[in-house]
Amino acid sequence: MLFRFSSSFLESISTHVDPKLPFISLSKGLELNTLRTMSTIIPRALGNRRQPFVVLSGPSFAVELMNKLPTAMVVASKDNKLASSVQQLLASPNLRISTSSDVTGVEIAGALKNVLAIAAGIVEGMSLGNNCMAALVAQGCSEIRWLATKMGAKPTTLSGLSGSGDIMLTCFVNLSRNRTVGLRLGSGEKLDRIMGSMNQVAEGVSTAGAVIALAQKYKVKMPVLTAVARIIDNELTPTKAVLELMNLPQVEEV
Amino acid sequence: MLFRFSSSFLESISTHVDPKLPFISLSKGLELNTLRTMSTIIPRALGNRRQPFVVLSGPSFAVELMNKLPTAMVVASKDNKLASSVQQLLASPNLRISTSSDVTGVEIAGALKNVLAIAAGIVEGMSLGNNCMAALVAQGCSEIRWLATKMGAKPTTLSGLSGSGDIMLTCFVNLSRNRTVGLRLGSGEKLDRIMGSMNQVAEGVSTAGAVIALAQKYKVKMPVLTAVARIIDNELTPTKAVLELMNLPQVEEV
Repeated sequence: MLFRFSSSFLESISTHVDPKLPFISLSKGLELNTLRTMSTIIPRALGNRRQPFVVLSGPSFAVELMNKLPTAMVVASKDNKLASSVQQLLASPNLRISTSSDVTGVEIAGALKNVLAIAAGIVEGMSLGNNCMAALVAQGCSEIRWLATKMGAKPTTLSGLSGSGDIMLTCFVNLSRNRTVGLRLGSGEKLDRIMGSMNQVAEGVSTAGAVIALAQKYKVKMPVLTAVARIIDNELTPTKAVLELMNLPQVEEV
Repeated sequence: MLFRFSSSFLESISTHVDPKLPFISLSKGLELNTLRTMSTIIPRALGNRRQPFVVLSGPSFAVELMNKLPTAMVVASKDNKLASSVQQLLASPNLRISTSSDVTGVEIAGALKNVLAIAAGIVEGMSLGNNCMAALVAQGCSEIRWLATKMGAKPTTLSGLSGSGDIMLTCFVNLSRNRTVGLRLGSGEKLDRIMGSMNQVAEGVSTAGAVIALAQKYKVKMPVLTAVARIIDNELTPTKAVLELMNLPQVEEV
């Protein structure tokens, strides 16, 4: 999602927050305009660069966790000790928690997977088949990895639970609002009609706008993710997007 | 699959093969005992170290290709020029072909994904849910990447079309014989009964045996893939395997 009120809310309570209180972020998204993630938003808004921070992410439908089905997630923090404490706090026989120091990788994958989920919905809405879905998701994972590593993430994070693990779940299984928006776009509906009929905002729709800014800022080519942004902006139809993507120069795999 | 007759067949025709004739391999598997892939088997059996060789792989159900649905694959060869020629030969408006020099990465992913497909079937047969499936596939991709990179592959290949792309398709969508074997194992059937009722061999069953040898040879820990091998060998029940995997030490993500 795009965070609109997080900074102002946190600023308003900053004097009441213990500077040693650890924050565990479950929020997947970017701040409107600044493109900042929670690991930056929280310490800035609280005026405390050292506010302890952990992000928790990974492929985890809440209902399955509640039904005690086996689940694996990641906690990432620059503070290894804090990551280990949160790991011990949350891990159970049904929930494995890995630790990581790669906050950027975990946060960027979490934010951008919603945009890829729209693309996955479009592929399904257009009945393009499973080969296309797998190619799309693999390409999308690569694009998110290219961006995230330019932002300082480790490539292995993007191949891990919070990266391709969560992305796979979102794209192949999830019937989220994001995927539903994509499905309806792929079936030929217009965005304003789709948005008008939904009670809640689909996070990927607003995050898609950030994709183009991020691609420019970090000089990364992300043909699939930017195509989603252009479809959302009504600059491109899904049919034209597929044609464009299939006609990109055939390149060496990186 | 495990190649049993490839070497002897190729040896028998070696005198008739033009030493400049390129081979395009679509065979995903390993040779029994030697653990060799086609890129090694072919030149050895033909007695020509320089026999031109290309491997073609990627997420591609044949029926979708035949129906002209968008598909993307990889051709890998140590000979860049040859890879480009095959790319131009096969690419069409419905089929994108990337090139790669990483023959090992493409071949190892293709061989081991069948073992992971059995694991995916087991998860489904045990009704362990989507969180578990995503965690399994992410972990399986990592294990295949750890092994393949020790064998000289590039990590990006394992994150690409022929790596996680093909693995996702096989694990989330494919109703292959491998996945069916896993599904029936996960539902509590015994392997000999399953095998007795199938007309064709499930490649992953035989390849699973190679996993333990490869893990030992290259000193790589592959808990998921070796668990499949032990289930196949009747050393472990699927229920015990899940318990074992969930109780492994909680570690840092790599």
